[in-house]
Amino acid sequence: MKVLVVNGPNLNMLGKREPEIYGNQTYDDLCEYIKKCADELNIEVDVVQFNNEGKLIGVIQEAVEDEYDGIVANLGAYTHYSYALHDAIKGQKLPCVEVHISNIHAREEFRAKSVTASAGIGIISGFGFLSYELGLRAIVNKK
Amino acid sequence: MKVLVVNGPNLNMLGKREPEIYGNQTYDDLCEYIKKCADELNIEVDVVQFNNEGKLIGVIQEAVEDEYDGIVANLGAYTHYSYALHDAIKGQKLPCVEVHISNIHAREEFRAKSVTASAGIGIISGFGFLSYELGLRAIVNKK
Amino acid sequence: MKVLVVNGPNLNMLGKREPEIYGNQTYDDLCEYIKKCADELNIEVDVVQFNNEGKLIGVIQEAVEDEYDGIVANLGAYTHYSYALHDAIKGQKLPCVEVHISNIHAREEFRAKSVTASAGIGIISGFGFLSYELGLRAIVNKK
Amino acid sequence: MKVLVVNGPNLNMLGKREPEIYGNQTYDDLCEYIKKCADELNIEVDVVQFNNEGKLIGVIQEAVEDEYDGIVANLGAYTHYSYALHDAIKGQKLPCVEVHISNIHAREEFRAKSVTASAGIGIISGFGFLSYELGLRAIVNKK
Amino acid sequence: MKVLVVNGPNLNMLGKREPEIYGNQTYDDLCEYIKKCADELNIEVDVVQFNNEGKLIGVIQEAVEDEYDGIVANLGAYTHYSYALHDAIKGQKLPCVEVHISNIHAREEFRAKSVTASAGIGIISGFGFLSYELGLRAIVNKK
Amino acid sequence: MKVLVVNGPNLNMLGKREPEIYGNQTYDDLCEYIKKCADELNIEVDVVQFNNEGKLIGVIQEAVEDEYDGIVANLGAYTHYSYALHDAIKGQKLPCVEVHISNIHAREEFRAKSVTASAGIGIISGFGFLSYELGLRAIVNKK
Amino acid sequence: MKVLVVNGPNLNMLGKREPEIYGNQTYDDLCEYIKKCADELNIEVDVVQFNNEGKLIGVIQEAVEDEYDGIVANLGAYTHYSYALHDAIKGQKLPCVEVHISNIHAREEFRAKSVTASAGIGIISGFGFLSYELGLRAIVNKK
Amino acid sequence: MKVLVVNGPNLNMLGKREPEIYGNQTYDDLCEYIKKCADELNIEVDVVQFNNEGKLIGVIQEAVEDEYDGIVANLGAYTHYSYALHDAIKGQKLPCVEVHISNIHAREEFRAKSVTASAGIGIISGFGFLSYELGLRAIVNKK
Amino acid sequence: MKVLVVNGPNLNMLGKREPEIYGNQTYDDLCEYIKKCADELNIEVDVVQFNNEGKLIGVIQEAVEDEYDGIVANLGAYTHYSYALHDAIKGQKLPCVEVHISNIHAREEFRAKSVTASAGIGIISGFGFLSYELGLRAIVNKK
Amino acid sequence: MKVLVVNGPNLNMLGKREPEIYGNQTYDDLCEYIKKCADELNIEVDVVQFNNEGKLIGVIQEAVEDEYDGIVANLGAYTHYSYALHDAIKGQKLPCVEVHISNIHAREEFRAKSVTASAGIGIISGFGFLSYELGLRAIVNKK
Amino acid sequence: MKVLVVNGPNLNMLGKREPEIYGNQTYDDLCEYIKKCADELNIEVDVVQFNNEGKLIGVIQEAVEDEYDGIVANLGAYTHYSYALHDAIKGQKLPCVEVHISNIHAREEFRAKSVTASAGIGIISGFGFLSYELGLRAIVNKK
Amino acid sequence: MKVLVVNGPNLNMLGKREPEIYGNQTYDDLCEYIKKCADELNIEVDVVQFNNEGKLIGVIQEAVEDEYDGIVANLGAYTHYSYALHDAIKGQKLPCVEVHISNIHAREEFRAKSVTASAGIGIISGFGFLSYELGLRAIVNKK
Repeated sequence: MKVLVVNGPNLNMLGKREPEIYGNQTYDDLCEYIKKCADELNIEVDVVQFNNEGKLIGVIQEAVEDEYDGIVANLGAYTHYSYALHDAIKGQKLPCVEVHISNIHAREEFRAKSVTASAGIGIISGFGFLSYELGLRAIVNKK
Repeated sequence: MKVLVVNGPNLNMLGKREPEIYGNQTYDDLCEYIKKCADELNIEVDVVQFNNEGKLIGVIQEAVEDEYDGIVANLGAYTHYSYALHDAIKGQKLPCVEVHISNIHAREEFRAKSVTASAGIGIISGFGFLSYELGLRAIVNKK
Repeated sequence: MKVLVVNGPNLNMLGKREPEIYGNQTYDDLCEYIKKCADELNIEVDVVQFNNEGKLIGVIQEAVEDEYDGIVANLGAYTHYSYALHDAIKGQKLPCVEVHISNIHAREEFRAKSVTASAGIGIISGFGFLSYELGLRAIVNKK
Repeated sequence: MKVLVVNGPNLNMLGKREPEIYGNQTYDDLCEYIKKCADELNIEVDVVQFNNEGKLIGVIQEAVEDEYDGIVANLGAYTHYSYALHDAIKGQKLPCVEVHISNIHAREEFRAKSVTASAGIGIISGFGFLSYELGLRAIVNKK
Repeated sequence: MKVLVVNGPNLNMLGKREPEIYGNQTYDDLCEYIKKCADELNIEVDVVQFNNEGKLIGVIQEAVEDEYDGIVANLGAYTHYSYALHDAIKGQKLPCVEVHISNIHAREEFRAKSVTASAGIGIISGFGFLSYELGLRAIVNKK
Repeated sequence: MKVLVVNGPNLNMLGKREPEIYGNQTYDDLCEYIKKCADELNIEVDVVQFNNEGKLIGVIQEAVEDEYDGIVANLGAYTHYSYALHDAIKGQKLPCVEVHISNIHAREEFRAKSVTASAGIGIISGFGFLSYELGLRAIVNKK
Repeated sequence: MKVLVVNGPNLNMLGKREPEIYGNQTYDDLCEYIKKCADELNIEVDVVQFNNEGKLIGVIQEAVEDEYDGIVANLGAYTHYSYALHDAIKGQKLPCVEVHISNIHAREEFRAKSVTASAGIGIISGFGFLSYELGLRAIVNKK
Repeated sequence: MKVLVVNGPNLNMLGKREPEIYGNQTYDDLCEYIKKCADELNIEVDVVQFNNEGKLIGVIQEAVEDEYDGIVANLGAYTHYSYALHDAIKGQKLPCVEVHISNIHAREEFRAKSVTASAGIGIISGFGFLSYELGLRAIVNKK
Repeated sequence: MKVLVVNGPNLNMLGKREPEIYGNQTYDDLCEYIKKCADELNIEVDVVQFNNEGKLIGVIQEAVEDEYDGIVANLGAYTHYSYALHDAIKGQKLPCVEVHISNIHAREEFRAKSVTASAGIGIISGFGFLSYELGLRAIVNKK
Repeated sequence: MKVLVVNGPNLNMLGKREPEIYGNQTYDDLCEYIKKCADELNIEVDVVQFNNEGKLIGVIQEAVEDEYDGIVANLGAYTHYSYALHDAIKGQKLPCVEVHISNIHAREEFRAKSVTASAGIGIISGFGFLSYELGLRAIVNKK
Repeated sequence: MKVLVVNGPNLNMLGKREPEIYGNQTYDDLCEYIKKCADELNIEVDVVQFNNEGKLIGVIQEAVEDEYDGIVANLGAYTHYSYALHDAIKGQKLPCVEVHISNIHAREEFRAKSVTASAGIGIISGFGFLSYELGLRAIVNKK
Repeated sequence: MKVLVVNGPNLNMLGKREPEIYGNQTYDDLCEYIKKCADELNIEVDVVQFNNEGKLIGVIQEAVEDEYDGIVANLGAYTHYSYALHDAIKGQKLPCVEVHISNIHAREEFRAKSVTASAGIGIISGFGFLSYELGLRAIVNKK
């Protein structure tokens, strides 16, 4: 089993960006964390990050051909307005889980709205890095 | 470690109610499932269900005194308008995870809004019974 | 044939509460009226009243097991915000008719919105006690 | 006793138009049904249908002079925006009951709003042809 | 000089309809009043009334060819939603004054909105029959 | 008979301010125009202008004591938000007619909203200086 | 093949009405243009125009019986509020294409909303008379 | 004179819940405080608290029969959405004063809206426990 | 201890303005009432009234220098839109209690919104003159 | 004559993505279809597709320099929120026609809004691949 | 060259009012700062401050006659609702730059809305006293 | 000192795009202007332009590492919807000033909303190229 983890804009800034919200761990720490989880779950995982909306659309579109079995996606702020990413997720055949490090319901009002969540199978939000582990488990369980 | 799982209105109707959305498994199946998860996670768990908003407020308020270490709550439709439950969750000291069986973002518009999610630590929505397992894991991990 | 008539919050105050809107007849008068209608329609009827949202959910959930053939419900002010009652009506299998004594479209703006009506088979509003008779006839006719 | 039944735009298409919502019976079937109800209720009834907003206003205005004792009106889609029909109903002296074949609360959002209902004495919605019978009974009872 | 006075839906009901708002004088009284004003202003006047939106559009379109010099229009409830009448007024070349008998800002909320007023040269509202005289004066003055 | 004409903020700038909307005539021209109208109508008139909301409130409050029989008021931009002026008009006993030089419905959206109009007896908008004459006539007629 | 072209309110004013938006060609020019297009496409075409909402509903309802194969409709301002025309289009069986001479998205805000477009198969807006030719082609292609 | 003090959901958590907002004093302290105030005012007082909406409705309905002369009510978060409590207050005959410990206008947006305040005689918000004393004084003064 | 009571626009009209809402007592009666309350509370009080937003801002700004210990303010209609007064209250150091004679939640919708209340320490609304006494008590208690 | 056809995000997924909405034909089929149309219309055509908003902006900006005579653009979901593409279309000199395969008015609510349509000359929506042919014809006709 | 700097309500409270937002420097410090900037720019400057909306309108109206060449205005909270000041700025002929000490987009929601900014030539917000210097430079540059 | 000037979508079209709004000077003129300003201010400056949202996010993220001391950003139409750029600005440590050539408050409604301004230290809008000079000065002053 092979899962694609897609990270959106500004997640590469983890550890540097607003640590009181996102914690002190860096993006490299996150990648390592995800890989360790994958090992424990006995699955393969690839982790990518793009600030670019078009590239995010691209990797999601190609995930089936690239022989992934599911997607875990933290689309950053695109979550709140990118109908193009909504369409990309809906238009491909893999189960996709939306994850967020912080609790999007407990911050600014614009973050409480996800235009992408209805395209995937579910949403996990608020548990720090653990959100990714739970997302991987949801994919594993789905198959 | 002991976790309280709180189920809100109409969850006792599982298996009978709109199976195309909530599946064919009954509320008893859910309770059994949660207990099995708890065993695997090596924690204790109590599962309660009330249709009554006041009783839900009560068990949440008393969870600390009843020596629980965390709460997993599926508040059913109260999720969408009960500011009193929001206050109950915010006013007690345990970590609380909001869970939903279905993806609340992919149904009627009123279900996409959670007035309680900002009071807890996070939200997990859309994975069937698995949402509860993931919720328990989030509590275990939080401690 | 057996029909359950469910009355919500403050209907027990009939006759005492704002008689210029709800008339001078008391809740007992209403119960008697409903029973007389049932006799004329040759059906059995049980009439219950609760101020409590949870209890209203409960009796609606159990109506099938209690061998009713249909529900006539005047949910009082819960009509305007109780998505939990919406779910209770939608989640059970009996035909449910929503009734109101006054014309909810001709009063305060908040009363014109019914969040429960879409869960039942129809709505009858504005005819005083007669709304209940019409509701019973709708149930009888539905079978 | 003589009642005027007023049908608005597109009701003449009954049976041909969206039968999954409005049923297979035709407009002639409806007229016949209403007349049979009137016989049973021992009242006279006239049934008219117009697509034209102005003509609907006209027959409602003249109903008193034409010696009707009440009006049952299904104004079709004018229900949702015709303040002119609202004024016509409010400006005449007969009791007027608004009826709908389908449950206007369980369809598209624009159908849940009635700008005419506050001008009449009440609304009956969702019971197929039976809505008309119940409307006639409400008029009979009102006198 | 010749002015067309156009009255919309339900104005023929004057004197019969909600006299506490529109007064006890009938539509015939209004016509007579308008004619008397015209005499005093030394102008010709024609007064028409239609409940029908299409006919109102028609007379407004043809007013130039019919050799009128201006229009005074009380479009009744169409004022609040008829963009087609807005277009009819805007699309012809005569000055058009919108008049109302009652103060549309001091009644139900929907009456405070005029979708037609921006198409004419001005609006006069709230002075009973006098609104028509003032409207005629505005036309006379405009030439 | 004595009428008070009250002009609000920026009307003293007439002729200098946006002549394409308000015309080239100055505030002095307006005063002269109003006085000539008053002569023709055989009434006395006083014309005042203040930018100051408080002073406008004051002259309106004191108009009865100052032995005026009515008020014609062009409150400028206060029209759109001054609930204090709304209260001032409502709280005194004289008939008050709201006038505007331009057609407030045919300009920016915020100008279409009058928070003061519901406090007076009517509104006249869009006829240039003539709006004032029509307003005076409405007062004269009211007595 | 026979197509019905339906024109709504004020289209008969073409050439006279706001030529900077709708051009200098008259309604007769439009009819001629449409007929020439039909000839080129080797189809029959009938062109009608009504200001009256009820008549527009009527011709659309009867188009099947009148043996048309499709409808091209420019409903003028009714586009923006006539749910009755929406229902008429939806309730009949022919493919219906909505056309507009001007680009409804580039004008006043109220014109950007079409309540009728969702009832037909598509919309063509902004190309002058050519919108009709393209509409005819869409019907021809649909068969 | 006897006054009923009704406390709603989560007020039993006083002292434990968000002390930076509600202070460090407990619910018992509040009860004691209220009783001391009552003594000073020479009135009798009963203080009740329920998390349950239905029970709150019940005690308010029965307050007259229980021979109270007025009600002081802090309905907690129900203040913001319980139209059923609005109806309960409006439907009984005693003067009812709404009180809040914190300033509901100076917190989250949803707290600034009170759907119950229009049913009582007034509202007192923001003075800590003192709000209750002021509420009692308002009742005493009302008699 | 010395308290400043600030009255806003139109309060000088008390007794003359809408007595069915504000009662028959005049502004002088109010001043006398407030002074009597102050005597009973053993405090000094000054009462001022201005229609002028700027002067109200001024006295509030200078209250500290004028050696007041608190402010009781009834800002009349400025309550609903004067962000400038909001800033004036927030920008000075004294406790300020907002009071209203009528229940602002039980009147027109715009009165339910207070843009000034979040700047003070609390709000008291609906008790007639008593609102002032309660406000003074809140100040006394605050010190 | 040379036309640029610009396709936006997810159009490369045609045939794979939601075939019940977009049909079974692939993006290659679309390109071939467009080229065949161009041949028939005797024009040159280039077809490009990008998921990337910035690249779409780029090709539109450069279309004049690249010696195109017009643009046919299907911007996918960017249609609903990309003001940057709106600006790109408005800021260049070629006629641009917006096309959509499906009827954007008959799907989710967010699709009914086009923020780009007002920048081009018109919109064609709902005719499958034919939308492109009609778009090309509109460009050809425009020159 | 001579520039008028206009300060609105509460700016005289600088240093005393919310120093965490506006800093500790007083209004006198601000005046001195502005004058020093003017010296460096080799222009004359007058600085005025009024709480009174009417006086602010007045100085802006008279600025041309008083031989100023431009205006720098910080209108305080009037910024958010004073259409009268909007009109005052628009109605005079000098370039006017709106300045704010704090970032109005990063505070309460109502501050993000400026009803005055569209009347001037631009806005500068968020740079403390520096905003005034930048505003002066914008005026100098404009000439 | 080194400042990064970031230009967003369509700014490369300056001089070609809507010159009545943006002026006739080209993007090269702008770059030159900015550099001349930098020279006068004795600072280094780099100017970049991207249509691509992801690249704009990238250069902002890397500005610290690239040893800039501040950012001046004109994000074009992304200003109105890019929460991802909001996060990029907020998530890095340099002071960022938002600039616009035109007055965004004086154009289409959608341009008045900036979702990015609250992430930076301030906004300067409406002064043509001068906005950039003022932005640079604000950065210089900030250090």
